[in-house]
Formats: sequence, C-alpha cells, structure tokens
Amino acid sequence: MSVITIERKVLEKNDEVAAQNRALLKKFDVYTINLVSSPGSGKTSILERTLIHFGRKLKISVIEGDVQTSLDAERVGKFDVPVVQIVTNGACHLEAKLVQDAFTKLDFTQTQLLFIENVGNLVCPAAYDLGEDMKVVIVSTTEGDDKPLKYPRMFMNASVLLINKIDLLPYVNCKIDQLRKNALQINPSLEIMEMSCTTGTGVDEWCRWLESKVRGKK
Amino acid sequence: MSVITIERKVLEKNDEVAAQNRALLKKFDVYTINLVSSPGSGKTSILERTLIHFGRKLKISVIEGDVQTSLDAERVGKFDVPVVQIVTNGACHLEAKLVQDAFTKLDFTQTQLLFIENVGNLVCPAAYDLGEDMKVVIVSTTEGDDKPLKYPRMFMNASVLLINKIDLLPYVNCKIDQLRKNALQINPSLEIMEMSCTTGTGVDEWCRWLESKVRGKK
Repeated sequence: MSVITIERKVLEKNDEVAAQNRALLKKFDVYTINLVSSPGSGKTSILERTLIHFGRKLKISVIEGDVQTSLDAERVGKFDVPVVQIVTNGACHLEAKLVQDAFTKLDFTQTQLLFIENVGNLVCPAAYDLGEDMKVVIVSTTEGDDKPLKYPRMFMNASVLLINKIDLLPYVNCKIDQLRKNALQINPSLEIMEMSCTTGTGVDEWCRWLESKVRGKK
Repeated sequence: MSVITIERKVLEKNDEVAAQNRALLKKFDVYTINLVSSPGSGKTSILERTLIHFGRKLKISVIEGDVQTSLDAERVGKFDVPVVQIVTNGACHLEAKLVQDAFTKLDFTQTQLLFIENVGNLVCPAAYDLGEDMKVVIVSTTEGDDKPLKYPRMFMNASVLLINKIDLLPYVNCKIDQLRKNALQINPSLEIMEMSCTTGTGVDEWCRWLESKVRGKK
C-alpha cells in the first residue's frame, strides 16, 4: 500500500526532527506541553487561565498552531508573553519541522514552560511528536463521554486528560465517571484533572501540577 | 513540493470516485447528505432526532464513519434503518472509495435519503468530496463563535450550517449573531438553522427542509 508507505516515511522524518527539538528543549531546561483537543474544547481558554495564574512567577512562551487566522495568538498575546503563530494553511496538525521553525523566534533562556497549542483535531495530532515532554488532551463535557473510545490513539499518546467545562455537567449528556472509565480503559496511566475556565474550578490544581513539573525538571 | 503533489494526486483520484458515486446516487434518486463537524458537536444526536421524526415516512439509510468503534452505528441501528459502518483505522476523514465500498451493502431502491456521518474533524473532511448532494456542517454553541474563521474551508464547502445545542447558550461564551456573521463572511450563501437535540427546538424546521430536498429531487 503506497499510501501507508508515504505516511510512514513522513512520520519517520517527523520523529527525527522531533528528537532534535527535544534535545534543544532539554538543553535549555524548557518544559514543553503539547495541548491537543477537538476544536472548541477550551485549549486557548485554559492557556489564558494559566497565564493569569502564573503572571510573572514562571517564564512562559506559547506557540499557536492554527489552520487559518491568528485569533488565538491575539488572545494569548494580551498576556504579555512571547507568542509565535504557526498557520498550517490547511494542514490538520502541527509537524515537528514547523515547530522547529517557530523555535527560532523564541528565546529559550527566558522560557521555563513552553505551550504548543496544536490545531483543533482529535485524530492526526496524536501521530506527530513535536519534541514535547508530554501531550495534554482536553475534552469538554459537552462532547459526551465516549471520545476516548472513538479517538483512542490520542488518549493512548497523552499523559494527562483535562476534563474541561465541568460547570456545564448539569446541562449535558455526559457521565463524568464513564468518561474517566473510558479514558483509563484506553490508557491506564493517564492522569485526569477536572476544570472549568468559566468558574475557575480546577485551575489551581492544574497550575500546581504544572509548576511541580517545571521545578522538578531542574 | 512533493508533499503537495501527492496530496493533489490523492484528491484528484478521490474526485473521480466521488463523481462515480454521484452518478450512482442520481440514478437511484437518493438524496445524500455528508454530515461534518468536530467530535462531539452532535452529528449522531441529530441523526437520531431525524430518524425519530421521520419514522417510516421516508426511507433513510446511514453510513457511519469512525476512526475506531461502531458506537455511533449501534446508536443509529436502534432505529431500524440500514446502517453501514466504515472504520477508517486512524484516517481522519472519509474518502470516496470507502463510501463506494459501503454502497455495496445498501439497497438504493429502498433509500430516498442517505446520511453519511463523517469522522469528527473540521479540517480534512472539507477537502474530500464523497459524491454527496451537500455537506451540512454542525457547530455547537459550546465551541464558541469563531470556528468559521478558524476552519474556513469547511464552511466554504458546506451548504448548510446547523447551530446545535442552542439550549446551552445561557451558559457558554458564544454570541450566536457573531457566529452567524462569521459563517456568512466565509460563505455568504450558507443556509443557517438552529437546533437543540435536548429540547427538540429546530428539529421540525430541519426535517421539513430535508423533506423538501428529497421530494424536490424527484
């Protein structure tokens, strides 16, 4: 199957560049999180909450990946942190090379924590290593509780699941215990946190966890 | 750029097969809708509502596209309509050839309306013609009002936008006028309907519109 071969070659090449990215990030002690989710699950809102929480306490930089527009970069840019926008022009995921190009516009001596906000897509970003320390996958309660079963690769490759929009639980058809169970069935070592960017629930826990990762790395 | 060439060849081949599909569907007077959205926007719930509404009044068949699992086909199968499941095994969109294979398991003499529920993804399914009469894109209010700007190709290629989960409007950060405006900025001829599968709002209007399309075709 030629298509599969092409795909495999693309992924092998991507993995090579991702390894270079990882080595560079390690050299500068930059802890890197690849934020992945469906469109509209709240990646940018979680970033905003995180930037508000930390203020100048942590040096944070952001790479924004979008198919079109720089709307997310504009939202994040309001917080006075370095932001680089990648526009994929139709591609449904970030690749390591695009991220490597973005690195040239960041000062890693002034970065302790780097967020890469991927394109909104639960499928392909799962397959592309960018050189990050971990993938954090976000699912909002409004998407229902079956997403880990339907998009298993993403949940297999993520280290953390953030269940977002828990303030909407009373109004939606999502059983949070079932969502947790489905996620752990796919990946038993997944760490799971709950959050609401509207009410602020869970933001402290998430930020404490982030800080422990950044400080632990040094 | 070799990658672009490969992509173009894949799309050209897909368009050929889609044209065959379209000719076959036309021959049997089957009106076909390609349902596209992010994961969790409500494609399957809208299908369920539609099947309940029509009962035996229209002959409906369904093709379900999923990366993994047959959960959606099981949900739809409860309504006693012919359902064919396509599992893409990791691919983030349906292609015309997969749909053509699924056609062999359906009886088009007993089908007036065919739904193809695509993989949950706002990016790649926009590029792949399956031979359908039209794409209907669903956005739920919980995804915010900026999605047409961020995923423009999907909204350019769709004929109808269903704004789903309008019962959640009081609880989410989504201005419906802005969502409509953004959608029409990308595609001025987009037909827009509002719906809630929880309360049933808009289901009648949607089904009346569907019926007019199916009857109008003959």
